[in-house]
Amino acid sequence: MASQEIDALAQALSKLPGLGPRSARRVVLHLMKKRETVLRPLLRALEQVEQRLVVCDICGNIDTGNPCGICVDPRRDTRSICVVEDVPDLWALDRSRLFPGKYHILGGRLSALDGVRPEDLNIDGLIARVAAGGVDEVVLAMNATLEGQTTAHYLAERLEEYPVRLTQLAHGVPVGGELDYLDDGTLAQALRARRPVG
Amino acid sequence: MASQEIDALAQALSKLPGLGPRSARRVVLHLMKKRETVLRPLLRALEQVEQRLVVCDICGNIDTGNPCGICVDPRRDTRSICVVEDVPDLWALDRSRLFPGKYHILGGRLSALDGVRPEDLNIDGLIARVAAGGVDEVVLAMNATLEGQTTAHYLAERLEEYPVRLTQLAHGVPVGGELDYLDDGTLAQALRARRPVG
Repeated sequence: MASQEIDALAQALSKLPGLGPRSARRVVLHLMKKRETVLRPLLRALEQVEQRLVVCDICGNIDTGNPCGICVDPRRDTRSICVVEDVPDLWALDRSRLFPGKYHILGGRLSALDGVRPEDLNIDGLIARVAAGGVDEVVLAMNATLEGQTTAHYLAERLEEYPVRLTQLAHGVPVGGELDYLDDGTLAQALRARRPVG
Repeated sequence: MASQEIDALAQALSKLPGLGPRSARRVVLHLMKKRETVLRPLLRALEQVEQRLVVCDICGNIDTGNPCGICVDPRRDTRSICVVEDVPDLWALDRSRLFPGKYHILGGRLSALDGVRPEDLNIDGLIARVAAGGVDEVVLAMNATLEGQTTAHYLAERLEEYPVRLTQLAHGVPVGGELDYLDDGTLAQALRARRPVG
């Protein structure tokens, strides 16, 4: 005789990635037991996200404004656009503070397996930004996976007709990485792209 | 440059059982993308639970009223109390509609490994209910695990001095269970407790 409220919450939770019906019930119980320390903070955080966050119409970033903080920032170089698969990739790249330009979020990667086609991604938006002019460089910063690289190749073809420089992230030994633990593909790329010392 | 709202939500989510920091971020992104179909329903369900559900002071059940619907139900037999480890056990037992009495939720099981001692469970509440009189039977419906059975034995000792009948759930072949797939312990119990046919 679980109450209707509990059933509704368990159902809502079971729609989250990684939570099935059984673990959703476990989460409900945890939330009930830790009402002050877990349920309330989660509720407030969800409210804030629901009320304040919007998707940027220009680049697809998620922020408190539309256009987003990056798109309206006058100090950022509009001539360079870094294309990423999803928002967390933008977060990761921007933490480095090394890229001075703007971003464009595809919202995924091409995948025959998952049935993701070009029209499912925000590719037209990217083409429109490039076609509008004023863009010198497009960084194709997809993941170094098969699907990511397929997506990068597809974008390269679509952007061929525009006078922009296409670049990609360098492959190589990660900082702190031990050679012995690296896969052969990365090692080969690092060797091929070796640079003079000093 | 993830916004503060996203960080706060990811942190709140990472406190749920089964979600680490990385999967919490994945959930945040999913919530952002499915604002209408996932985020809003989850928010409403959490609000309902936060505003409407309370813990019953008598039995520890979670319901919209305190005392809970079962404790105040005049059709239920107050002479019989079924003791369970946690609220989902009550839900599971009550779905059978075969137990006509009241419940008592311990809020866990004794566990040397997890450092759960008798004073961490709602055992005093149970003793007080039995000591108040009017109770004929206490069903010790702990899980059939080592810790569950340890808890049942402890409760049996504590309740020894009161004039109540202590019972436990029958062990045996689950309905629909194939003998070949059952563990030997269950089979032995089922054989020992065999009953005349018809």
